[in-house]
Amino acid sequence: MTNKDARTPASVQDETSQEAGKSIGWHKAYVEGSRPDLRVPVRQVHLTNGQSVTLYDTSGPYTDPLVDTDVRRGLPPLRENWIIARGDTEEYAGRPVRPEDDGIKHTSPRGGLRNLDAVFPGRPRQPRRGRGGQAVTQLAYARRGEITPEMEFVALRENVSPEVVREEIAAGRAVLPANVNHPEIEPMIIGKRFLVKVNANIGNSAVTSSIEEEVEKMTWATRWGADTVMDLSTGRNIHTTREWVLRNSPVPIGTVPLYQALEKVDGKAEELTWEIYKDTVIEQAEQGVDYMTVHAGVRLAYVPLTANRKTGIVSRGGSIMAAWCLAHHKESFLYENFEELCEILAAYDVTYSLGDGLRPGSIADANDEAQFAELRTLGELNRIAKRFHVQTMIEGPGHVPMHKIKENIDLQQEICDEAPFYTLGPLTTDVAPAYDHITSGIGAAMIAWWGTAMLCYVTPKEHLGLPNRDDVKTGVITYKIAAHAADLAKGHPGAQEWDDALSDARFEFRWEDQFNLALDPETAREFHDETLPAEPAKTAHFCSMCGPKFCSMKISQDIRREHGGSRAEIEEGMALKSKEFAEAGNRVYLPIAD
Amino acid sequence: MTNKDARTPASVQDETSQEAGKSIGWHKAYVEGSRPDLRVPVRQVHLTNGQSVTLYDTSGPYTDPLVDTDVRRGLPPLRENWIIARGDTEEYAGRPVRPEDDGIKHTSPRGGLRNLDAVFPGRPRQPRRGRGGQAVTQLAYARRGEITPEMEFVALRENVSPEVVREEIAAGRAVLPANVNHPEIEPMIIGKRFLVKVNANIGNSAVTSSIEEEVEKMTWATRWGADTVMDLSTGRNIHTTREWVLRNSPVPIGTVPLYQALEKVDGKAEELTWEIYKDTVIEQAEQGVDYMTVHAGVRLAYVPLTANRKTGIVSRGGSIMAAWCLAHHKESFLYENFEELCEILAAYDVTYSLGDGLRPGSIADANDEAQFAELRTLGELNRIAKRFHVQTMIEGPGHVPMHKIKENIDLQQEICDEAPFYTLGPLTTDVAPAYDHITSGIGAAMIAWWGTAMLCYVTPKEHLGLPNRDDVKTGVITYKIAAHAADLAKGHPGAQEWDDALSDARFEFRWEDQFNLALDPETAREFHDETLPAEPAKTAHFCSMCGPKFCSMKISQDIRREHGGSRAEIEEGMALKSKEFAEAGNRVYLPIAD
Repeated sequence: MTNKDARTPASVQDETSQEAGKSIGWHKAYVEGSRPDLRVPVRQVHLTNGQSVTLYDTSGPYTDPLVDTDVRRGLPPLRENWIIARGDTEEYAGRPVRPEDDGIKHTSPRGGLRNLDAVFPGRPRQPRRGRGGQAVTQLAYARRGEITPEMEFVALRENVSPEVVREEIAAGRAVLPANVNHPEIEPMIIGKRFLVKVNANIGNSAVTSSIEEEVEKMTWATRWGADTVMDLSTGRNIHTTREWVLRNSPVPIGTVPLYQALEKVDGKAEELTWEIYKDTVIEQAEQGVDYMTVHAGVRLAYVPLTANRKTGIVSRGGSIMAAWCLAHHKESFLYENFEELCEILAAYDVTYSLGDGLRPGSIADANDEAQFAELRTLGELNRIAKRFHVQTMIEGPGHVPMHKIKENIDLQQEICDEAPFYTLGPLTTDVAPAYDHITSGIGAAMIAWWGTAMLCYVTPKEHLGLPNRDDVKTGVITYKIAAHAADLAKGHPGAQEWDDALSDARFEFRWEDQFNLALDPETAREFHDETLPAEPAKTAHFCSMCGPKFCSMKISQDIRREHGGSRAEIEEGMALKSKEFAEAGNRVYLPIAD
Repeated sequence: MTNKDARTPASVQDETSQEAGKSIGWHKAYVEGSRPDLRVPVRQVHLTNGQSVTLYDTSGPYTDPLVDTDVRRGLPPLRENWIIARGDTEEYAGRPVRPEDDGIKHTSPRGGLRNLDAVFPGRPRQPRRGRGGQAVTQLAYARRGEITPEMEFVALRENVSPEVVREEIAAGRAVLPANVNHPEIEPMIIGKRFLVKVNANIGNSAVTSSIEEEVEKMTWATRWGADTVMDLSTGRNIHTTREWVLRNSPVPIGTVPLYQALEKVDGKAEELTWEIYKDTVIEQAEQGVDYMTVHAGVRLAYVPLTANRKTGIVSRGGSIMAAWCLAHHKESFLYENFEELCEILAAYDVTYSLGDGLRPGSIADANDEAQFAELRTLGELNRIAKRFHVQTMIEGPGHVPMHKIKENIDLQQEICDEAPFYTLGPLTTDVAPAYDHITSGIGAAMIAWWGTAMLCYVTPKEHLGLPNRDDVKTGVITYKIAAHAADLAKGHPGAQEWDDALSDARFEFRWEDQFNLALDPETAREFHDETLPAEPAKTAHFCSMCGPKFCSMKISQDIRREHGGSRAEIEEGMALKSKEFAEAGNRVYLPIAD
């Protein structure tokens, strides 16, 4: 998307660059919508040749020097007036927060909390839900033909018409995750007609990490391009960590409520009940969780199908539900109570992410009976969710060798009525622990090309440990590559203009423009400077790979220069020569008798 | 490939592990062939459950504690007796080494040399060539129905019959690069019926790096799995650097002779002549270069086709030849003298790597007229080379978006009579400098699945600078992932056994086995220890991602344990329950009236 777009970015804020004392080459800007409170953030890259390129921006108000952010106060509630204006929700007292929400049984709620002075100190708020339990979902609005401000926002963001957004949501081919209790988000859309999205997982665990770290990982992930963030915290302080994350997140937040429910029964899967689960879902919906992974497709009858697998059940949620089913020898309480769950989610506009609890955990288990049996159930549940106007996406694998990837997306699209597919990778081989961002980035790019709408990132620490700050960045950037490669392959309008701008800069030795247009400007600049650190090298017409004599781009440019100034002239000159050449017989090589 | 293989590794040397003071879990071993001097190296991984896994090994004698290596002496000439025994070659005085071979014009040969005391000190040797100029190529032997020791070696290495190897070489669908002057190599094969191979580029440049660094990069690259190495040195000391690299390399070495030829004319492309080029080819063939990139497909008539490109000509060789053609307005001297070149290469068994000088340097230029015009010429040249019994592979792009990749391999296979395709990536997007190992790893995996025989690696420094040691390792491992993912997708016999062994170890919490089976054991272990450093954690039945309560693998195992010991028993138990369940109606969920 370049400055040739019809969209007009609002006045550019120059403060960032001036503060840094020199031009950093890009600014936060906004595309204005039909009303003053509808401003879509973009990253405006200013090139040294006077042109500019407009890129999608997920970093939130943190990169806008005119916005005064404070993690202790939270982000401004961008969507609050839109939600209130619809008049279909009501505030209510809400469920009281209990010590066990933070995994604390025998002490005061604050007793077990760590860091940031624990409880979120921002303004107190009451939760909101659909008046009289009505569905206040973007799906319900879209089906009624309404274009909400959220839909207009994503239309501007994706550079498509609002009607396309409405149609895709109404058809269930896209979701716009936006809980009425998470007014801080900048709306985004997940669907195969739109840019491929990337989710980053964060979350403390029983073993390590703190609240600060999780909030920091969230802002860090969105800075590098994460479109949504899943908080997969386990252990203590789950409720409080989530509150901090939600109040400070400019992107939709997803969770797996089963993890917190399990904490409430001390990790004993068999002690889980529908009541505890439902209470946890309401707790999280009131906080503002935008989408929830629900493993309702792990049915009792499918568990034996995993017995001969190489790696059994590898989904945490899947294994918890399988353990519960077997312990009670009963059908899953999630499957049995799915309609009641739909009623709850509809009243907050929480989007379903129907979990693939039986996804393969190794190449050997890919596309097996267990996996596809669950997928068929997810198709059934998707139709039920739609009856309740609940937005729904479907989760997918996992570990799948390349030749078995396409069957996954094709079957999912068929069985689930084209609901958005949301896949983890898939990893295309098992043999490279410490490089699973790469084994999975390969599969992710392919499956996204073929129709997956959102990719769940995998970091280098997958299978080995918890990702740190660097791992989160590496994971997000790897997946932005996969997503953008898929946007190109799908022919997404505007996708290639970014590549073209960077390639032009490369050919013309505009090093600073190359850096500023890169997915990761800092590392690109650092790598260049490692070999050729001097400032003049940034404008040199060669680089360290070949040196001045051998530079192919330089030779290409010399050829053009010698044979005329513009491309048209050189082509004309060359064509003339070529014509002479063709007229002379067009071949120089004389074949010998064999 | 596991210990169930028919192949019997020779006695395992334990010295490595004993020296380290504790078991490191793997050893260099050898699979013995039909004669005592035919021993194929393998990496034998010993698992804690008593089993072992045999992996392909490219690291050469350096990882064998029984072999006393010394870079100043070079590797033992493994193939020397095989070559002599054939009786079709002769030693001769050879071309004297001249100062200009090392880019030195006005001083003594040693004057310009740096490091390692410059000239290689190993035993003096005379070059060898086909007696009376006859073709002494593996292709010639294969066509005559001969199975050479080299062919038997690769058959053992690939776990196929020698006859399959001979057939594939005879048909031109595979090459076995093995210059008669490079007896040090452990033979390997490049063809779509075999394991996908990876090439790593090294090479000093006019700007930076030394001889030691290049030799070190070569051994380092092969340690991580590089199957061949290309020495792309420019600037000074090209001849001497190459001598050190060749004498110490257990893998075939490739070059681009044009680079050195250009140094001999001070970087002035228009001053190149066929005579200078030919002399350089002979110089390199006498040293033992196993394959040479020849940009004979860049014809005068094709140069104008690049005029409207986004990034012109990005291949160094391609741009040099284009500059020469335009400066003289003559057909390429490489194209014109191609048959004479074939005669030279045949006499040393140098394999052609027909260069794609007009490959696209940006997404925008992929699959254009210039690229495919050159490809058609490469098809023509391939047939000529085959007449001279010269083994030939074809180089391919470059920068190609995913949806345009398949056309590249399909066209190449059709036009070039299934000659092995050897591609650089392709990079699937231009927007991620500093991550082009990943942008290209995606394309590499896909094109290898579809038939590319060898992948030329790309490091994180691509477009930005010269790769250092870490970059070489990252590039090689990324490409081993792509190659292995392709082996899996192609259903290469034995490929999945490696994944299965690692997945079994993962499911059974055999952490040490996971590390030892990993493509990069060191990093996998390091990442694990970062979060859970204690030694007991290596045998813990959980890991840091989920902690003890939530571990899905542990829950899966608990399920199995509770319901019977073995997989068969648990399946039986589950199946019984499942049957009861099915008899009870097989559904618990009651649909409501809509």
